[in-house]
Amino acid sequence: MDYKKKRNGLRIIPLGGLESIGMNITAFEYGDSIIVVDCGLSFPTEDMLGIDLVIPDITYLKQNANKVKGIFITHGHEDHIGALPYVLQDLNVPVYATRLTIALIEHKLVEHEMLDVVERHVVSYGENISLGCFKVEFIRTNHSIADAAALAIFTPVGTVIHTGDFKIDYTPVFGDVVDLQRFGELGKKGVLALLCDSTNATKAGFTMSERTVGATFDNLFAENMNHRIIVATFASNVDRVQQIIDSAYKYGRKVVIEGRSMVTVISIASELGYINIPEGTLIDIENLKNYPDEKTVLITTGSQGESMAALSRMASSIHKKVTIKPGDVIILSSNPIPGNEKAVSRVINELTMKGAKVIYQDTHVSGHACQEEIKLMYALLRPKYAVPVHGEYRHRKAQADLAIAMEIPKEHVFMLQSGDVLRFDKDSAQVVDQVTHGDVLVDGLGVGDVGNIVLRDRQNLARDGIIIVVLTLERYTNQLLAGPDIVSRGFVYVRESENLMEEARIIVQNAVEDCTSRNVSDWGRIKNCIKDDLGDFLWKRIKRNPMILPIIMEV
Amino acid sequence: MDYKKKRNGLRIIPLGGLESIGMNITAFEYGDSIIVVDCGLSFPTEDMLGIDLVIPDITYLKQNANKVKGIFITHGHEDHIGALPYVLQDLNVPVYATRLTIALIEHKLVEHEMLDVVERHVVSYGENISLGCFKVEFIRTNHSIADAAALAIFTPVGTVIHTGDFKIDYTPVFGDVVDLQRFGELGKKGVLALLCDSTNATKAGFTMSERTVGATFDNLFAENMNHRIIVATFASNVDRVQQIIDSAYKYGRKVVIEGRSMVTVISIASELGYINIPEGTLIDIENLKNYPDEKTVLITTGSQGESMAALSRMASSIHKKVTIKPGDVIILSSNPIPGNEKAVSRVINELTMKGAKVIYQDTHVSGHACQEEIKLMYALLRPKYAVPVHGEYRHRKAQADLAIAMEIPKEHVFMLQSGDVLRFDKDSAQVVDQVTHGDVLVDGLGVGDVGNIVLRDRQNLARDGIIIVVLTLERYTNQLLAGPDIVSRGFVYVRESENLMEEARIIVQNAVEDCTSRNVSDWGRIKNCIKDDLGDFLWKRIKRNPMILPIIMEV
Repeated sequence: MDYKKKRNGLRIIPLGGLESIGMNITAFEYGDSIIVVDCGLSFPTEDMLGIDLVIPDITYLKQNANKVKGIFITHGHEDHIGALPYVLQDLNVPVYATRLTIALIEHKLVEHEMLDVVERHVVSYGENISLGCFKVEFIRTNHSIADAAALAIFTPVGTVIHTGDFKIDYTPVFGDVVDLQRFGELGKKGVLALLCDSTNATKAGFTMSERTVGATFDNLFAENMNHRIIVATFASNVDRVQQIIDSAYKYGRKVVIEGRSMVTVISIASELGYINIPEGTLIDIENLKNYPDEKTVLITTGSQGESMAALSRMASSIHKKVTIKPGDVIILSSNPIPGNEKAVSRVINELTMKGAKVIYQDTHVSGHACQEEIKLMYALLRPKYAVPVHGEYRHRKAQADLAIAMEIPKEHVFMLQSGDVLRFDKDSAQVVDQVTHGDVLVDGLGVGDVGNIVLRDRQNLARDGIIIVVLTLERYTNQLLAGPDIVSRGFVYVRESENLMEEARIIVQNAVEDCTSRNVSDWGRIKNCIKDDLGDFLWKRIKRNPMILPIIMEV
Repeated sequence: MDYKKKRNGLRIIPLGGLESIGMNITAFEYGDSIIVVDCGLSFPTEDMLGIDLVIPDITYLKQNANKVKGIFITHGHEDHIGALPYVLQDLNVPVYATRLTIALIEHKLVEHEMLDVVERHVVSYGENISLGCFKVEFIRTNHSIADAAALAIFTPVGTVIHTGDFKIDYTPVFGDVVDLQRFGELGKKGVLALLCDSTNATKAGFTMSERTVGATFDNLFAENMNHRIIVATFASNVDRVQQIIDSAYKYGRKVVIEGRSMVTVISIASELGYINIPEGTLIDIENLKNYPDEKTVLITTGSQGESMAALSRMASSIHKKVTIKPGDVIILSSNPIPGNEKAVSRVINELTMKGAKVIYQDTHVSGHACQEEIKLMYALLRPKYAVPVHGEYRHRKAQADLAIAMEIPKEHVFMLQSGDVLRFDKDSAQVVDQVTHGDVLVDGLGVGDVGNIVLRDRQNLARDGIIIVVLTLERYTNQLLAGPDIVSRGFVYVRESENLMEEARIIVQNAVEDCTSRNVSDWGRIKNCIKDDLGDFLWKRIKRNPMILPIIMEV
């Protein structure tokens, strides 16, 4: 009975990253049907040494693979599509998304050699997809990438709205304003629950229109007529690139697109008609030298200070084709994502040292809704329940406070954690269970083979290095035949510390001889003696704790 | 002749950190006299794995030790006094500073067991110290720590003003407004060069008075009458603590000071009369339980998210004496220092999850001058030459632009690098030389024994871990007697990758046998074969590059 009660009704299960939740992957389950909304990755935190990316643990979905009907993607950012190649290996179900989003997904699938095996469907705004117990409608929103959608998920117990990442832009650069009418209509009919973007929920007011950045570019181009201009921004922000190209065209400049991901996205967007480049404006980077500096603009990646991106390579003089010159005007059209501040600073300093003028203030607007926009969404939809998603805990909590201010009863607002099962029936909602969840770390080709033990070892190695003690013992007698030899890496530079290492060798030798004289023949115990004695010695002498790894061979 | 020309005149030599310059340590040299201004440390950048702190390389001062007359300290922050215990070991000269600064230095010397061997002098504002060819006057400034001073350095070729870190606070909490009259007077008499704080040189306008934060605290205390309040701020910001105590007293709350550095600084400041705590206001943390929550305030360290500081320990429930409760109001009275944003976010999220209300916006003012204050300083002093100091390159460049806007000729503005020797005589100034400079890394008790090779090893170890290959060969014949054994740390979790490790063992065995069959007996070449073959294998199989360390023993 209890089991049955837990399993019936509508179940919403976020399988998120560490700090963002319910947007990396969210499962909607009812009866024998599961649909999945978004399939994103997150980037490693600073303690995840050597990790390339992090994907959600989908054990629960694999256990219920026969139920999973399809994956719906709200938009084409990495934190919404990046885990698809990994998840689709375990769950080969159809993927539904708008046109540009599908094109970006297809590019990713080609890279993973999976294009032939994955079923994809381009969905239009207003279109409905019926899968199992669910019907899903795509609704137009605005965001920092074109073709973003909210989802209306019609379930047997009511309608759930998932906003995806959104802002309200009354004057978007491409396409139309978010479909506020449809939200109003759905709200009037009754909405069970709203899962709404929280990223900017701590920020008062309204996010400015993307178009305002265009005006800024026009001014900057007018002020810097006699200099080359280089603009760095997010590769996926096609509207931003459109506006830079518009300013360039207006001021008679040729445009170079540089940086691998920028070239990819712009060529996809251009092919599909999401960007409009006047004929003859775009030139190849090889032809840059044929134009005077003040008649060119470079649009590049690297606005977050990423060390391998084009702008960083220009800043540190390792870019093959572009050399920064005094007088260059460089615009960072982005804000640093938390954690990238130092890297961005470094790039700004390096560019400034080369004599460039770097402009990095007031050249960006966010793609996420601020408080007044979030309130507008609540006012249109008037949901019975609120589930703040996307954002750190404090951001989601700020939205919860907004929801309560908008007269949603406190007990109808749910602050979920990854793996929580939030069950709805017609009359109630509660968290009834928690399923397997967590981070799967991807390092090179290894998915999930780096766990806590390996990470802890990497942290220890990073802090104080390693000392390896090798010795060869005679079989049966345990007499020392060779060694102990001591080799260190990442500990101290040996030439400057020969005394220390020689003393360490004697400490180990004494430890081994002591074991022999006490007839200790168990290798585990010998190794522990070496570790303890050498560890104590090094801590006393130099206040460091390198990893100590004794290796015993037997001949 | 050329040598003599280089050595005469006044020589100013910054020996700075990586990103701040001319403030960590600045040497002033004339004839047989050197005086040193400030003696600070910097904190390791993220690629300096395991490093505790960074001090400037003072090789040049050691080479000229007989000339060095004394060290003048502008104020008591770590980036101005932190390297003293290390530098004084090599250069035991007298230290001159204002009263609170000397007290903080003495505390540091006690910790390093050096109090008895260092000569210290308390200097008052307006007082002159004559050392060798120099006369130095301390001038009152305002900053985020009391007793901050600018220095007027009278030299045979003219007067140099070094502002130290400063802001202009017309209504300081403690003491008087910066001595603008004296700056005016000195300016009128003629100033050769100004070395001015650049930290906020990219920011328009004026930095607000410290007193404005007091008004904010009053409001926050009034709004949160029914809750416990915890305020985290910089331990050294005594005026901030004073204002929190004032608000607490006004609203009838008892105050607990928590966090080691906070307790230290406040007890020193209190003893010397730099803070005024009404009788009966301060209570011991042990007595906290005897008062209702809403009648208490805790003032703690940890506003930068430092993992071992009091607030972080409270946030992660490992503080021994304070448990965060729902309803607690926590004020972060600081802005994150660049690089600390993620750590601060984490603490805010953890506290919010415990049900606390965290207030972190508009609760802080900077201790550094913005553009209008910097311009005021230039207007008062009208220096012939400008040398922007303290701040990243882009900040110093922004001050250079301000100086030029204030009609200092472009060729009279010097953007120095660490180690540059800027020589002044009565008619000219130019960079004539560069002396040894750089970062000395401190790790545990080791000063300078961790260099680039060790750091690079730590970075490699951190990224992909280490694989150690051990084998024992028979002397002369080079026959394999034991092994190859393979041990890894920080690479992959072995139980999940036994096949991989067994394959790796076979690769190594083949490599060794191949060497034997080709009569390769040189250990270096055998090791290289192992590294190459195993490295290729691992990259192909798993796209990782662990450090491979072959160790050969001989029996």
